[in-house]
Amino acid sequence: MASIREVAKIAGVSPATVSRVMNGTANVDEEKKQRVLDAIQETGFKPNELARALFKKSSKIIGMIVPNIENPFFSEIAKAVEEEAFQNGYKMLLCNSANNPKKERMNIQMLVQMQADGIVIMTNSDRTGKKIAECGLPVVVMDRKLSEGREIAFIESDHYKGGKLAAEHLIECGCQHIVCLRGPMKFSSGQQRYQGYEDVCRKYGRKAVWIDCDYDYDAGLAAAEELIRRYPDTDGILASNDMAAMAVYKVLHQNGRRVPEDVQLVGFDNIEFSRRMTPELTTISQPIEEMGKLAVQMIIHHGEEISYQKENIFDVELIRRQTTKKKGEAE
Amino acid sequence: MASIREVAKIAGVSPATVSRVMNGTANVDEEKKQRVLDAIQETGFKPNELARALFKKSSKIIGMIVPNIENPFFSEIAKAVEEEAFQNGYKMLLCNSANNPKKERMNIQMLVQMQADGIVIMTNSDRTGKKIAECGLPVVVMDRKLSEGREIAFIESDHYKGGKLAAEHLIECGCQHIVCLRGPMKFSSGQQRYQGYEDVCRKYGRKAVWIDCDYDYDAGLAAAEELIRRYPDTDGILASNDMAAMAVYKVLHQNGRRVPEDVQLVGFDNIEFSRRMTPELTTISQPIEEMGKLAVQMIIHHGEEISYQKENIFDVELIRRQTTKKKGEAE
Repeated sequence: MASIREVAKIAGVSPATVSRVMNGTANVDEEKKQRVLDAIQETGFKPNELARALFKKSSKIIGMIVPNIENPFFSEIAKAVEEEAFQNGYKMLLCNSANNPKKERMNIQMLVQMQADGIVIMTNSDRTGKKIAECGLPVVVMDRKLSEGREIAFIESDHYKGGKLAAEHLIECGCQHIVCLRGPMKFSSGQQRYQGYEDVCRKYGRKAVWIDCDYDYDAGLAAAEELIRRYPDTDGILASNDMAAMAVYKVLHQNGRRVPEDVQLVGFDNIEFSRRMTPELTTISQPIEEMGKLAVQMIIHHGEEISYQKENIFDVELIRRQTTKKKGEAE
Repeated sequence: MASIREVAKIAGVSPATVSRVMNGTANVDEEKKQRVLDAIQETGFKPNELARALFKKSSKIIGMIVPNIENPFFSEIAKAVEEEAFQNGYKMLLCNSANNPKKERMNIQMLVQMQADGIVIMTNSDRTGKKIAECGLPVVVMDRKLSEGREIAFIESDHYKGGKLAAEHLIECGCQHIVCLRGPMKFSSGQQRYQGYEDVCRKYGRKAVWIDCDYDYDAGLAAAEELIRRYPDTDGILASNDMAAMAVYKVLHQNGRRVPEDVQLVGFDNIEFSRRMTPELTTISQPIEEMGKLAVQMIIHHGEEISYQKENIFDVELIRRQTTKKKGEAE
């Protein structure tokens, strides 16, 4: 294998100049630079991977930053991103930010230093949005919109339609007292899902009733207990997501409410656990795999002539399972 | 901030020599090298993070390679490793190998190039064991023992005791026909858990009955269907792990078997989902958090005078929940 010295000799420059061209650390005049690049090609010089990353400004690494790796929605997206990256000769590096904006910024910094080809991020923090704007790498934001909006693209699913489908399904199933456990209003997902529910209520002349509920299991437990206390005649529930729905089911069961006979329940996301639980959960499916694929493709082809939409909204669908049932329908 | 030029000037050498000392790419005589190191200290020169990684041979990065990020057992360990790493000023990079030895080797290679401080790996492949032996980084193997054994340490929990505790608990609860859904025999975990079960059967004069069952949900579904067909009078089940137990519960429910009244069920791992499911799963708890912490500490302190055991076996305990119940015990 050719060494940096041989490249320098052929190009008629010092090894330090070759180094400078590779690292882009100092000005080298164009004519010399071209000689170095020609010599590199001629000798088939292979710098080590780290140096090559500096040189090519590409490391074949896609960084992925998620708020909580233990949450199946995020780990399923990470899996989809990893598979698509691998198919295209890229590696995925996964960073768990634990919902900590400081960790998110550290992770972005690290990925910049590594010359990652891009970052896929799911974050809750607008301060992180600022860091994204400054980092210089192509960043795709998924699921949670940021106010800064300096990412190359934003990918989410049609949360509004999802909220509507879920509410309409509960009405069709004959529910009279439907409560929405609405997700965080600071996220577009929480707002949009609730908006869909509210619009369906208006259409059918129902009163929109809600309880706040974060996107996790423990929040689902607390919200369900509040619901049983405040709205004991509830017969239909839109949970904030599948994890919360799993908790709601447990609380209903503990309180002797049968699902779906007494109370019907719809989740959101269609994570694997929604079909693994017993009874299997009726839910709104987000196309997790396709969303992950698109994010990777956008990073790989960033700067090329292919043009992508900045805002990408994926369709959702209702997956009917065992926690809902039309009144009067046979077993 | 000082530049490489200032360092060179103070040391009385060329910038290229400073570069060589930092990168270790060529021989520099000891006396010159010392002058450069002194000058670096004097000026407080801060090379960028990438260069510093080359220089210090430390990047404050711990790599973690798991077979399937979507499996909660692995994502919970990853979370524990990340938290401990962060507490100590390190970052964790998570790689999903999708049980593909080729991806594992690519990931190890990438972490070597990045000058990671060490790797925590959970792998099924002995060929990967060979790569570990050659990679030059401190590697901690978790959960699944490899035949090569060239890692700095191996961490697992006491699977034998776990198998024993689970079997004894089912006997105490009054089960007469206990079946073990045994995990893969190629893993120490599968062998040891089954051995524990078998020894308890021998002690109580019972016949050991088993069905093979991998460590995932779909394997649990298939094994439970086989069990219902072949051993219809089963009244106690040791599942290979919690994910499989979740599937077993579903199949029992579909077949009209009540848990724990007709059939009692014990899982293994104590992942979060074991308490989230309804009914809550009786299981054997592995101390996931402590195992992750130790792995990180071993990498951070590798090469220092602190000495760690090569083999580390963590204690397990039985967590009684709702899928088992002593016959005759009140609700």
